[in-house]
Amino acid sequence: MVHQETIRLSTTGNGDMHDLSDAVAAIVQKSGVTTGTVHVFAVGSTSGVCAIEFEPGLQKDLPAVLNRLIPPSRAYGHEQAWHDGNGHSHLQASVIGPDLTLPVKKGKPLQGTWQQIVHVEFDGRPRDREVTVTVMGE
Amino acid sequence: MVHQETIRLSTTGNGDMHDLSDAVAAIVQKSGVTTGTVHVFAVGSTSGVCAIEFEPGLQKDLPAVLNRLIPPSRAYGHEQAWHDGNGHSHLQASVIGPDLTLPVKKGKPLQGTWQQIVHVEFDGRPRDREVTVTVMGE
Amino acid sequence: MVHQETIRLSTTGNGDMHDLSDAVAAIVQKSGVTTGTVHVFAVGSTSGVCAIEFEPGLQKDLPAVLNRLIPPSRAYGHEQAWHDGNGHSHLQASVIGPDLTLPVKKGKPLQGTWQQIVHVEFDGRPRDREVTVTVMGE
Repeated sequence: MVHQETIRLSTTGNGDMHDLSDAVAAIVQKSGVTTGTVHVFAVGSTSGVCAIEFEPGLQKDLPAVLNRLIPPSRAYGHEQAWHDGNGHSHLQASVIGPDLTLPVKKGKPLQGTWQQIVHVEFDGRPRDREVTVTVMGE
Repeated sequence: MVHQETIRLSTTGNGDMHDLSDAVAAIVQKSGVTTGTVHVFAVGSTSGVCAIEFEPGLQKDLPAVLNRLIPPSRAYGHEQAWHDGNGHSHLQASVIGPDLTLPVKKGKPLQGTWQQIVHVEFDGRPRDREVTVTVMGE
Repeated sequence: MVHQETIRLSTTGNGDMHDLSDAVAAIVQKSGVTTGTVHVFAVGSTSGVCAIEFEPGLQKDLPAVLNRLIPPSRAYGHEQAWHDGNGHSHLQASVIGPDLTLPVKKGKPLQGTWQQIVHVEFDGRPRDREVTVTVMGE
């Protein structure tokens, strides 16, 4: 069985995080799959999906750590060619990745108690985003 | 075909690594899948799974690099709210990720010679962990 | 339905990137899968696959950022044991990861406009590489 749906969200930019856990669980339930996997994919190269505890402290910490390690800068090769101010966004997104796959067990995404499914915006401005969810299994 | 099993392990904390390659290969064999994928998922937000060579040098290097880039600290927003000493653990785990998917080819997980399936503990204390393995294919 | 094929490529080492998007799309088309997922996996522990914009600026920036954060060095534990000069390659590869999964929608891999499927070589010398692509769905 395969079931695919798209979640739409609007972000404010600069590390803005959204908890997609409830939306993904609803899609898994609708799919009828009880055992398998659910794949969550951020369409676009300057955002990502990760499994982090969704709480205000880490909502500040993750963007802060990434901005310290891979700071916004006009010195990137990407900037010198495109001048669109998001060289660091592409690079931060490559470290976190656009895809997350979780097991489906007893009809639900399997997650730890403090392990949410979180979309992270790395671009420096508000964006409308699509996250495609694909459930496979039996 | 879908086959799902859970591996249980106990870690000593602080970058402790376990090689899950043999356990995952046994689950793939039991599944009867000859062509497809095997998905390996660490339940919990302060550990991860990666494909690294499992040898004593890198067992020191990977935690050391992550502690240099994302050091244990009481200054994280997560610490100021929760005081549980594992802000860096959540952040390090987000960089490595909880999930790894490998091809199944001729009834076995496809890996390079020096590419093991490794669970990494990022929490600062011993933990009992569950890793859920889902094999899909034909 | 499951369809699996291997892409072969030769790299020049040190962050050399190859855009696999066309090759992956051709394999998806050949599979006959219209809805599902496509899994792309770099065999070997010193290269990786990520979803980054494939353009000359970022082709310089990503290896430069990784070499700044995880520099080539003889001081790694891996080097002291193996003396093969690629301790940093294993560590950089662990951050990017060997696997990328994308949705298949209407018979094509779903990607953003500036989101290519890119193989990155982290080893310090030219390598022949295999990337295994597994398409599953209906």
